[in-house]
Amino acid sequence: MELTWSLELGAGDFVAWTMYDLIIIGGGPAGITAGIYAARKKLNTLLITKNFLGQATRTSSVENYPGFKKISGQGLINKMEKHLQDFDIDINQGEEVEGVRKKQNFFEVRTNQKDRYKAKAVIVATGADPRPLEVPGEKQFIGRGVSYCSTCDAPFFQGKKVAIVGGGNSGFEAALDLVPFATNIYIYEFGDKPAADEITQEKVQRYKKIEVFLHTQVKEIKGYKKVQSIIYQDRRTKKTYERPVEGVFVQIGSIPATGFVKGLVSFSKRDEIKINHSTGQTKTPGLFAAGDVTDTKYKQIIIAAGQGAVAALSAYEYIQKFKN
Amino acid sequence: MELTWSLELGAGDFVAWTMYDLIIIGGGPAGITAGIYAARKKLNTLLITKNFLGQATRTSSVENYPGFKKISGQGLINKMEKHLQDFDIDINQGEEVEGVRKKQNFFEVRTNQKDRYKAKAVIVATGADPRPLEVPGEKQFIGRGVSYCSTCDAPFFQGKKVAIVGGGNSGFEAALDLVPFATNIYIYEFGDKPAADEITQEKVQRYKKIEVFLHTQVKEIKGYKKVQSIIYQDRRTKKTYERPVEGVFVQIGSIPATGFVKGLVSFSKRDEIKINHSTGQTKTPGLFAAGDVTDTKYKQIIIAAGQGAVAALSAYEYIQKFKN
Repeated sequence: MELTWSLELGAGDFVAWTMYDLIIIGGGPAGITAGIYAARKKLNTLLITKNFLGQATRTSSVENYPGFKKISGQGLINKMEKHLQDFDIDINQGEEVEGVRKKQNFFEVRTNQKDRYKAKAVIVATGADPRPLEVPGEKQFIGRGVSYCSTCDAPFFQGKKVAIVGGGNSGFEAALDLVPFATNIYIYEFGDKPAADEITQEKVQRYKKIEVFLHTQVKEIKGYKKVQSIIYQDRRTKKTYERPVEGVFVQIGSIPATGFVKGLVSFSKRDEIKINHSTGQTKTPGLFAAGDVTDTKYKQIIIAAGQGAVAALSAYEYIQKFKN
Repeated sequence: MELTWSLELGAGDFVAWTMYDLIIIGGGPAGITAGIYAARKKLNTLLITKNFLGQATRTSSVENYPGFKKISGQGLINKMEKHLQDFDIDINQGEEVEGVRKKQNFFEVRTNQKDRYKAKAVIVATGADPRPLEVPGEKQFIGRGVSYCSTCDAPFFQGKKVAIVGGGNSGFEAALDLVPFATNIYIYEFGDKPAADEITQEKVQRYKKIEVFLHTQVKEIKGYKKVQSIIYQDRRTKKTYERPVEGVFVQIGSIPATGFVKGLVSFSKRDEIKINHSTGQTKTPGLFAAGDVTDTKYKQIIIAAGQGAVAALSAYEYIQKFKN
């Protein structure tokens, strides 16, 4: 199944290129699941990833991946990675993809290590990084009060006071997610009015336990072992305040790592890759996407994993066509 | 969140009906995952299922559910069921849904125990049963050579001879799935020509290890502890043969259990419920479907689970609208 090409680059330079069936870019739940499914279909597969992480590892405790009552995000990814490594699949860890190009009937994938790979099909599963607040204390308290996912973590804040940074849809929705659990919810919005939809704002207004602070900037997250308070400034009066909270949800958007497929895919308003949700197909035949990098509405580990399986099985069907 | 209605049925008969937020019908991977997600959203939820089984339990060993390198289908469902029972959710096991009706703003669900339930939204996750061959030996050797899912089980037949019953697309595709593993693959088709697509037939013809037997009827599966042979009859000559095989894949279609939602949903050619694949929504607002009961192309545990999560989160959003 493996084809090695010799290619003349310049005067006397020869590079041997392996033609893979499939290259998977990304090592989160979607990429790993795609890898498991591709390997089981005996596709000659290369998985390229910076690391085996993904958004999942930002969650202190995962309680909604069916089969595991409670597991750390890192623990779950470790299990998935070990599962993947049971199969016959090439894995390039520590490498970052910088460009994907479509040639006649194949794709060329270029990495930051100046490596180039060829494949008949490609699955993009690079996920999305939540945009960090970049204030002192944020990194330190990730998983110890600082969270980027209310759907994942709201239940951990039963009976607690929490701050939400960001007054857009995701911030307001995070507040609603927290209503059944938290006692007090403070939303801090940088601008002079919330960016959330009216309907969502109206819903939030119904709850006395949610308070919105406009024209404010969160400056620091403080604590000892766990989050204990935030420091924020009123941008009009320039006065600085400290508010005791045990949780801080950072909801100021995400940064999808998709620059390397520009031109080959269509993007949603949020820079997510648009896919056909029953096949994982992007607008370029042979190029698939799965997980949080896509325009899937709900960013969840189990959903990303399911999409990884769909993309791999679709890629398998696509590759079968070449055998005609 | 719970609303109890008193309803006058006839002379002096009063029945108290609970208005649930959500009723989930089905206890396979899709239904269980929907239940976990609904409970985490604090929806007042009822799950109705004959049993906690689903197609998953027909697989002797699951090796493609990320996180578990190897687990029996039954073992995985048991873990998922225990996971679900950690949450605050009503579960009616042993009950079968006979009808779903849409009223103004809610659904009425009727069961074989003459119970009636109301809910603002419903998720159908009743799966699909593979059509059984109904010959001696079939039931006895399920998981010991008899399989209904080549994607799941092909790798277990490395170096073995296998029979496939059914010459339609799924039978021919099962043969292709088995090519990398089995030494000999015998397809038995009842009719005078295969029903599989031409393209698929052409692919199969390329492999010497696959043989197609037309106008044949498999009469019995024989063995001791595991499958050892099949008995089949040539329907023209009426002669009966025995063929040594270690595996029998039954690929003669499936029977989706969807009669109870007729009129509320659209069906595919295969009687699957058509859904919007990014939301799980059927053609009736508030009625969702997930897993093998839907027109999802690939019937896999991880995909069904992902769809269960999508349907529950979509149902949550739908129910939120009532609060406006």
